[in-house]
Amino acid sequence: MPVYALTIAYRGTAYSGWQVQKNAVTVQETVQDAAERVFGYRPDVTGCSRTDSGVHALGYVCHIESEKEIPVEKLPLAMNMQLPRDLSVVSARLEAEGFHARYSAIGKEYMYVLRNSRIKDPFTDGLCYLYPFPIDERAADGRGRSFEGKHDFGAFMSTGSKIKDTVRTVYYFRVVRRGDYICIYTAADGFLYNMVRIMVGTVLKGTDINAALETPERRMAGPTAPAEGLYLNRVFYSKEELEARCREMLRCTDVE
Amino acid sequence: MPVYALTIAYRGTAYSGWQVQKNAVTVQETVQDAAERVFGYRPDVTGCSRTDSGVHALGYVCHIESEKEIPVEKLPLAMNMQLPRDLSVVSARLEAEGFHARYSAIGKEYMYVLRNSRIKDPFTDGLCYLYPFPIDERAADGRGRSFEGKHDFGAFMSTGSKIKDTVRTVYYFRVVRRGDYICIYTAADGFLYNMVRIMVGTVLKGTDINAALETPERRMAGPTAPAEGLYLNRVFYSKEELEARCREMLRCTDVE
Repeated sequence: MPVYALTIAYRGTAYSGWQVQKNAVTVQETVQDAAERVFGYRPDVTGCSRTDSGVHALGYVCHIESEKEIPVEKLPLAMNMQLPRDLSVVSARLEAEGFHARYSAIGKEYMYVLRNSRIKDPFTDGLCYLYPFPIDERAADGRGRSFEGKHDFGAFMSTGSKIKDTVRTVYYFRVVRRGDYICIYTAADGFLYNMVRIMVGTVLKGTDINAALETPERRMAGPTAPAEGLYLNRVFYSKEELEARCREMLRCTDVE
Repeated sequence: MPVYALTIAYRGTAYSGWQVQKNAVTVQETVQDAAERVFGYRPDVTGCSRTDSGVHALGYVCHIESEKEIPVEKLPLAMNMQLPRDLSVVSARLEAEGFHARYSAIGKEYMYVLRNSRIKDPFTDGLCYLYPFPIDERAADGRGRSFEGKHDFGAFMSTGSKIKDTVRTVYYFRVVRRGDYICIYTAADGFLYNMVRIMVGTVLKGTDINAALETPERRMAGPTAPAEGLYLNRVFYSKEELEARCREMLRCTDVE
């Protein structure tokens, strides 16, 4: 049975995250509805991660292990014909049997976008966090380096999560200014519940990161930044891909 | 009486253009509603031009000749508190008595944005024209130079317009690629009804521009490009401002 990996982009505003829920529109269900029309039956659609309500994606990956063969190069346009305007299949590829969008992933990159201005912008409204106070992006970038490496991120997890092992490896945490916008890029082998949003809140507030890594309790970290600024940007499935991105991120001050 | 000039940005999707109409939401009415709450009475709000339904703006200018004095530096935030998410006052300045958003303007710049891809993007949906065929931006930029100068633009006006004098001076017409997007910038001393959209449709189609300038009949020009790609970008009120922008536009291949 062919396994199709789809890279999708979506504006998360209208969705209650990825995972199918009763009484709420989710990304998974919306992709499944479109796939049903394209494949002629309702296939399972398996995502690379749950994302929270309101979070956006530029490079979310999901897979379909299909009963039916469809030319892979035709999938993006065929799916996009069936998808709403806030969700798009960016690309599709055929994967080897056994590929799993979640379990085959070795890392993920998130991007967090702030508009650093007192003036709202109608074109990025809902797509970034409006932050009116001055941000020294170089100082923030310097502070954020403390996240890099293998640490207990227990302080950077929303209370209520049942996860026991809170040790993760963060590959990079970069803060870049682009005019009125600040983009924060971070990749890890895995993220805890609300981890990126708490990391961002902590860096913005200037809370002592090293102390929060030493004492992994939620109260040690800063506030949780709002969902509307968060994007799942990339998922890494090979060491080469991840290493190339790490080199890019550690070198560059202006990145895509 | 103080005269306030407001520079506003809006996402035009939900608006039936600038001018107040019965049974339709317009930008003028929305700005007036906000101004009523800020000024304590309902002032007249005068715009720099009518814009069509669905057209966007980054630097639209309107003025309010106010019965009441309000510190000008407080106006943007005060107005934005009252405005919906798709409309924002970017800046405000105090103008000399006699200033008129429309009659004091000596030129306007529009920007037209195309997404040159077969794949739709959820984040720019409704904000550009999805154009799946290849665009040679250098060739298009070269062809567009024919628009520059003083010509009879009668072929570039939608039929039904009652305007008699169709001679206008176009200061520049530039085509620039930015990744998957093509931005077209054009400024003139005035634009006819749908002129920019017809100019864009003509350049994309490769229709003979010189012939259409020689025989000013609508059938000589190309199709009208859709409203969703069009932005009122700037309004010029001084010769220095316009000349500086012209120099920038004639020099640069990559512009803001």
